[in-house]
Amino acid sequence: MFDLYTSSTPNGWKASVALEEMQLPYEVHSINLMEQEQKSRAFLARNPNGRIPVLVDREEDNFAVFESGAIMLYLAEKTGQFIPSDAKGRSQVIQWLMFQMGGVGPMMGQANVFYRYFPEKIQPAIDRYQKEGRRLFEVLDKQLAKHEYLAGDYSIADMANWCWVRTYEWSGVDISGLDNLVRWKNSIEARPLARKGTQVPDKIDKDKLVAGAQTIVTR
Amino acid sequence: MFDLYTSSTPNGWKASVALEEMQLPYEVHSINLMEQEQKSRAFLARNPNGRIPVLVDREEDNFAVFESGAIMLYLAEKTGQFIPSDAKGRSQVIQWLMFQMGGVGPMMGQANVFYRYFPEKIQPAIDRYQKEGRRLFEVLDKQLAKHEYLAGDYSIADMANWCWVRTYEWSGVDISGLDNLVRWKNSIEARPLARKGTQVPDKIDKDKLVAGAQTIVTR
Repeated sequence: MFDLYTSSTPNGWKASVALEEMQLPYEVHSINLMEQEQKSRAFLARNPNGRIPVLVDREEDNFAVFESGAIMLYLAEKTGQFIPSDAKGRSQVIQWLMFQMGGVGPMMGQANVFYRYFPEKIQPAIDRYQKEGRRLFEVLDKQLAKHEYLAGDYSIADMANWCWVRTYEWSGVDISGLDNLVRWKNSIEARPLARKGTQVPDKIDKDKLVAGAQTIVTR
Repeated sequence: MFDLYTSSTPNGWKASVALEEMQLPYEVHSINLMEQEQKSRAFLARNPNGRIPVLVDREEDNFAVFESGAIMLYLAEKTGQFIPSDAKGRSQVIQWLMFQMGGVGPMMGQANVFYRYFPEKIQPAIDRYQKEGRRLFEVLDKQLAKHEYLAGDYSIADMANWCWVRTYEWSGVDISGLDNLVRWKNSIEARPLARKGTQVPDKIDKDKLVAGAQTIVTR
């Protein structure tokens, strides 16, 4: 049994999509980002960075895991699901997971900040991040032209990248002409458990990520 | 035996510091970022994202690993060094590695872009990233107030964060008052192999990361 402290943002979904796809039991604790609940003393005791999501593993003496990428890897390793066991296959999944952690996530996050929430309209900054988002999407598209999924079978790397890619409209990142990316995105969108994971803690429109993104500016 | 395709940037150092600390044999291939060598066909065959560093494991039929975080984890797992073998200790190292991958690296990278290289001077963007860098450094400082290293013994998580933190001056991130961070930074700086890793492929001043950062804007 797990506890998941989360909000309706792409990083939050990464954890809930993994838990759903692995069919693990978990209790959801909704964190109100607008009220800065992620900066409360109780939350910071579980994640000193004050960011959602945080996973707590009750079976392991309430061991807390922060950083969405670390949560996915923890769950995959614990259950042996959605990651290969051989060193090469495993590394390929981790490479594409890191690609999301260091690239797709931060760059789309910055696009959201400047496109949606920043007090001033700074066009060069908006352009920079939407262009970088498009460049990263093109890298995914090329990989998906040769492979059904990013690294072998459907894995945590697909879940992680998909949770961000699906919000392309909100970030203003153009996906026109990226047919392989769209095929892959739609095929994951059609998975009932993945889709269920994106409705945790709330059913929200993926094109209106208001609560999650505003905190990036106000924190 | 490994091949390392790299440049003198914090992400490049992450790979060479890990190889040095693990005392592994490797051949260095210097990639000229100013000439966009990381976008050449030969390079893209090893990393479709066109970014340094890339590691090639000759022993494993020239298996290529991209993303600096994935390289560190691959080497740590292969050698059993600088990461614990138990699930909890291992996850704690991965959590702080992900903290660097998704936080410290991208935010300091953006600070560099707007503070050093952007064609226009956009003060709100400079402020945003320097402030976020400082916030992340405070998280590290708090962790290091209670622990000698970030997650148990000295690990790849320390190496990863240190490679970025040591360039604080170049990013314009203030470290005043962060005594625990400074103590930790200096203790790693004093490790001969870690220091040697930061001189790969070239001995450059850590406060003048020109080549690496410019490509962020021009690519």
